[in-house]
Amino acid sequence: MKNSKNVQKYMFGNGSINNLKQILNDKESNSNYLIYYIDEYFKNSELFYKIPITTNDEVFFVQTKDEPKTNFINDFRDILISKNKNNPTAIIAIGGGSTLDTGKAVANLLTNSGNAEDYQGWDLVKNPGIYKIGIPTISGTGAEASRTCVMTNPKNGLKLGMNSDYTIYDQLILDPDLTKTVPREQYFYTGMDTYIHCIESLNGRYRNAIGDAFSKQAIALCREVFLSEDMMSDENREKLMVASYLGGCAIANSFVGVVHPFSAGLSVVLDTHHCIGNCITMNAMEEFYPKEFEEFNLMAQKQGIKIPKGIASNLDEETYQKLFNSTIIHEKPLSNALGDNFKEILSYDKVKEIFKRM
Amino acid sequence: MKNSKNVQKYMFGNGSINNLKQILNDKESNSNYLIYYIDEYFKNSELFYKIPITTNDEVFFVQTKDEPKTNFINDFRDILISKNKNNPTAIIAIGGGSTLDTGKAVANLLTNSGNAEDYQGWDLVKNPGIYKIGIPTISGTGAEASRTCVMTNPKNGLKLGMNSDYTIYDQLILDPDLTKTVPREQYFYTGMDTYIHCIESLNGRYRNAIGDAFSKQAIALCREVFLSEDMMSDENREKLMVASYLGGCAIANSFVGVVHPFSAGLSVVLDTHHCIGNCITMNAMEEFYPKEFEEFNLMAQKQGIKIPKGIASNLDEETYQKLFNSTIIHEKPLSNALGDNFKEILSYDKVKEIFKRM
Repeated sequence: MKNSKNVQKYMFGNGSINNLKQILNDKESNSNYLIYYIDEYFKNSELFYKIPITTNDEVFFVQTKDEPKTNFINDFRDILISKNKNNPTAIIAIGGGSTLDTGKAVANLLTNSGNAEDYQGWDLVKNPGIYKIGIPTISGTGAEASRTCVMTNPKNGLKLGMNSDYTIYDQLILDPDLTKTVPREQYFYTGMDTYIHCIESLNGRYRNAIGDAFSKQAIALCREVFLSEDMMSDENREKLMVASYLGGCAIANSFVGVVHPFSAGLSVVLDTHHCIGNCITMNAMEEFYPKEFEEFNLMAQKQGIKIPKGIASNLDEETYQKLFNSTIIHEKPLSNALGDNFKEILSYDKVKEIFKRM
Repeated sequence: MKNSKNVQKYMFGNGSINNLKQILNDKESNSNYLIYYIDEYFKNSELFYKIPITTNDEVFFVQTKDEPKTNFINDFRDILISKNKNNPTAIIAIGGGSTLDTGKAVANLLTNSGNAEDYQGWDLVKNPGIYKIGIPTISGTGAEASRTCVMTNPKNGLKLGMNSDYTIYDQLILDPDLTKTVPREQYFYTGMDTYIHCIESLNGRYRNAIGDAFSKQAIALCREVFLSEDMMSDENREKLMVASYLGGCAIANSFVGVVHPFSAGLSVVLDTHHCIGNCITMNAMEEFYPKEFEEFNLMAQKQGIKIPKGIASNLDEETYQKLFNSTIIHEKPLSNALGDNFKEILSYDKVKEIFKRM
């Protein structure tokens, strides 16, 4: 039975980012500087000039071409130590899943010895991290509510987060104004992460009434957003930001299913980003999630979004073997979806055939 | 814009109360005793013998004939001080709204000087309270998730809680097994508290997308429960416990409407308990909430529950004046429901007529 931890506080509403300064002023601290991680997309943007940065603060722009790697996190930690800036009042992350996860990982690493890779796993973080504020600028991953921060260790290819109660944000600012400038494709792919992890949860064997309730409401909101005429209207961007938060809460009480393991395979072997990887995978999931497969395609069609096809249809045998290994390793979600005998269903040939179908 | 605080942790599931000992063991503390507030209904019950009480602990049975009064809270505090038991590892409240609210209020008063009545209002509590665990045994009030603990001051009749972030529980144990023995009427009246505060929120003027999402899911669950054949089936008791928690989260992001002020009037003047008072009021709300009035009656009928009638139909003028005063004082919810001119709609004659209709 899980003892689920919530984000401590959240502020929701258009323009809520303007309250960041007040929230920081209300926070007691012995320190007089802040650390910002900001998605590089916002360098010199209108948003950037709204952030109350002072000369003492350290600002890092996070590149999102690659998803977080353990050595990135170690490097950020080393820079802060070399500048004697390793005990800030707060770490503030402003961006999408990669940026939010970077903020979480650095906050943990500043108060725990060793390197990021030492904490990939479950409940390995020993000390509470630095107080941290998450400000999402795109909706869907649920990173703002979850107890993990996904990182890849380039040395051994392990893609796994610091799953810990200490990884959860202390404060969220959920400002739907910040998602206005998201490119349409990206908005769809990322939003679909919520839809997909919630339909996986609801179709799984390990469920409870509270996880179900979060998933159902998140899906209801995704339907309102993606089956409407304009998924990016003011009202729909608000709804998707709420859906993302609730989807993160749902995951805290349940498990994902078949989609996420295949998407993880794409990510580890072909460097496909998580959210588009989910959508590419979803397109090959008709046999596992027939109704949702249909609804997913209806949503994509309604919003005029094309899901890339054929990215894994003509690979060599060695690559298929790697994809198979990186997929089948995810025992918890696969047994949640298919039962303890999932390896009988997902033979090498079957997995290869599914990748070819994508 | 509200900065909403969440309950820190929650554990959900049948039998989750058996994890209380482990949760307490995991908690660091300089103290070696606990304070329990337990609904008197459970004295010598099966549940009582499941609680890991030790000889050092202090156990109080909370009477629920009267809802909490400020002097009850002050008395509890005085007893603990006289026994030198005012710095426990945790306060644990096991019961319905009154018991949960008692635990919250005592936890605040042990770390803040003065009396309970000094903290009736908004954000008056200065110091964090004692670490506290809430274990609801009936579903509906949302007290497990809310930032208030309602108390009446017998000296001036003021019914108002300690509205504070410090009032929120640190840990919840949501164990649907504990609601098995609730009397059917009580189960209905209390469950309806969730339905009613959520329909009030959704019909109000001050709303946001996150409050709406919590309200809608809570209402969806109430519908599943109360429009089913057996509202107290295992599955439905789980759902109602989730609905109650989500309803509490909804209230943190919105306001109630016309029902709660009238119900508060009944409570202050006629000592009607909160949840049955809501149901009695709901029966006179057709003009304000026509669809919900109809659905409410359908639910009552489906479950074979009779709502008391006529409790305010033949009172003297002085009592109607008191009822009017105790209703109209609730400006925030009434302007949320009816606009800033609510006093034009709710004249003395109109309010009296509504009470007569109940």
